[in-house]
Amino acid sequence: MSLKSSKKLLTKVRTFATSANLGPGFDCAGLALDIYNDFEVYEGNSKKNCVFFNGQDIQGIAKDENNLICITIRKVLERKFGLNFINYQKPIEVTCKINVPVERGLGSSSTAVVAGLLIANRIYDLNLDILELLNIGLEIEPHPDNIAPCLAGGLVISYKSKNGSYKFEKINIIENFKILLMIPDFKINTNGARKLIPDLIPKEDAILNIANFAILISRLKDGNIENAADFIRDKMHQPYRKDVYPDSLNIVEELNNNFEIPAAISGSGPTAFAFISESRFKDFNEKIMPDLKVKYSDFEFKFTKISNKGSYYF
Amino acid sequence: MSLKSSKKLLTKVRTFATSANLGPGFDCAGLALDIYNDFEVYEGNSKKNCVFFNGQDIQGIAKDENNLICITIRKVLERKFGLNFINYQKPIEVTCKINVPVERGLGSSSTAVVAGLLIANRIYDLNLDILELLNIGLEIEPHPDNIAPCLAGGLVISYKSKNGSYKFEKINIIENFKILLMIPDFKINTNGARKLIPDLIPKEDAILNIANFAILISRLKDGNIENAADFIRDKMHQPYRKDVYPDSLNIVEELNNNFEIPAAISGSGPTAFAFISESRFKDFNEKIMPDLKVKYSDFEFKFTKISNKGSYYF
Repeated sequence: MSLKSSKKLLTKVRTFATSANLGPGFDCAGLALDIYNDFEVYEGNSKKNCVFFNGQDIQGIAKDENNLICITIRKVLERKFGLNFINYQKPIEVTCKINVPVERGLGSSSTAVVAGLLIANRIYDLNLDILELLNIGLEIEPHPDNIAPCLAGGLVISYKSKNGSYKFEKINIIENFKILLMIPDFKINTNGARKLIPDLIPKEDAILNIANFAILISRLKDGNIENAADFIRDKMHQPYRKDVYPDSLNIVEELNNNFEIPAAISGSGPTAFAFISESRFKDFNEKIMPDLKVKYSDFEFKFTKISNKGSYYF
Repeated sequence: MSLKSSKKLLTKVRTFATSANLGPGFDCAGLALDIYNDFEVYEGNSKKNCVFFNGQDIQGIAKDENNLICITIRKVLERKFGLNFINYQKPIEVTCKINVPVERGLGSSSTAVVAGLLIANRIYDLNLDILELLNIGLEIEPHPDNIAPCLAGGLVISYKSKNGSYKFEKINIIENFKILLMIPDFKINTNGARKLIPDLIPKEDAILNIANFAILISRLKDGNIENAADFIRDKMHQPYRKDVYPDSLNIVEELNNNFEIPAAISGSGPTAFAFISESRFKDFNEKIMPDLKVKYSDFEFKFTKISNKGSYYF
């Protein structure tokens, strides 16, 4: 599929897959991965003020104004120009090259929201900064744990600031590991998965997550994830969702408990991920992964790394 | 008050004050402070198998076998020798020099528990390691956030391991700040304060604490606590206890909100503490502290630092 077109090119953006939660960092932590979607934006020749989506024909991605990119662009314009935004709209066409698996817990929808944010900021010359973009994006997708790392790159912890708006902190870590994604062949709708988690949770579960996540971050900063499997354990989301991704959780528990390899569910699943330290990589590849591939033959196994760069124009 | 005695000296231990929670690190984080209690242990001449407590006459500290040191020694013996422990008991007398304020949220009772653990380990030649001591101590005082840093020194995050026992992680940080303790003239019973916090808490509050605490730890490791007041905010304990330490919480909020100085309640209060960065220390002392001292005239203001050493024999 070519990204070329005879129409006038307005901008090109690259947005990254993200893995949210990282085990105990529920609804606040996310990691940008080196897997990305590319979007080319052309002047449209339609009278319709909406995005027409060309490119790969991917099931579940709308090709009309209901596409998340289009929705996001309208939201940005509405925030900037109020209800008159409709007068400012330019017809555009977007061509895409999609590499991020859809509805697998890898932040696919955030790649579209962030694309919409960056496209609107550029083609309407808005000069919105990254925090303004984040907070507009959150009106579309109300959880920052994918959008913030998708915008900023790296390992990002988002938080609600005193004034109620979201901010984030990019955490410097030592990346002496590879990230193994284990992607099963079915989709999970994030909104459905969210409903499985009650509004009130046991205090003791929260304490476990607070301790584990802080230690996990400390270990990542020290470049010391050997024997860190204890610290990726979570009690706030994965146990409630175990019926929607039983095999994924089995892999996670097997890696954590039998091999001391830190593993967790990516976002709301069904993808599982693991941090494979460089020092154990050869051993893992030769002795552990072959058996996993046999046992979990429906899963795609794929190594990736962190994208320390955030989404960008190219 | 002299620590000397004509009786045979068995051991001397020094145990440290601790500040638990550090804002969002509820029930898992604690910091050992450079304020300590010293205990000298002598052979007793009594037939009673219990600790007789000499030294300062401090209200609220039992002088008989109900003293926490004595209770802890019995618990260690019981764990080691079973119900026959009574046959192993040696009569001892303990003389103390108490510097850690009692029932102020500075881990005073943990100094006694840890003293009991270390004394028992030494005088009965038990060779228990620090994790064994921690877990026995937790049978007396069931929360690790004071006992673990009192034993290990430094900034410690405790966690429940897979097998249910407690472990801890000592976090290396850059200490480019002073710790200001603000100690009001009244006591709070920790057990009573614990009952104010419900067993079920809003998920959103837990998420705030998870994010804030991980960022706070990251900032402390980077030696960057400028503008870190956002990250010491907590929703899991301080708001529930605000009626028991209203002035302490006022100081905390004033420092956080008006001066961007990270401050929180120490343990279950009523002491408040703040991290005063070296770069702002002069400015704080000249411009902020004088007003605070006038406004909160019932509080003692005291600077201290971290004790990176854990409790020890001396």
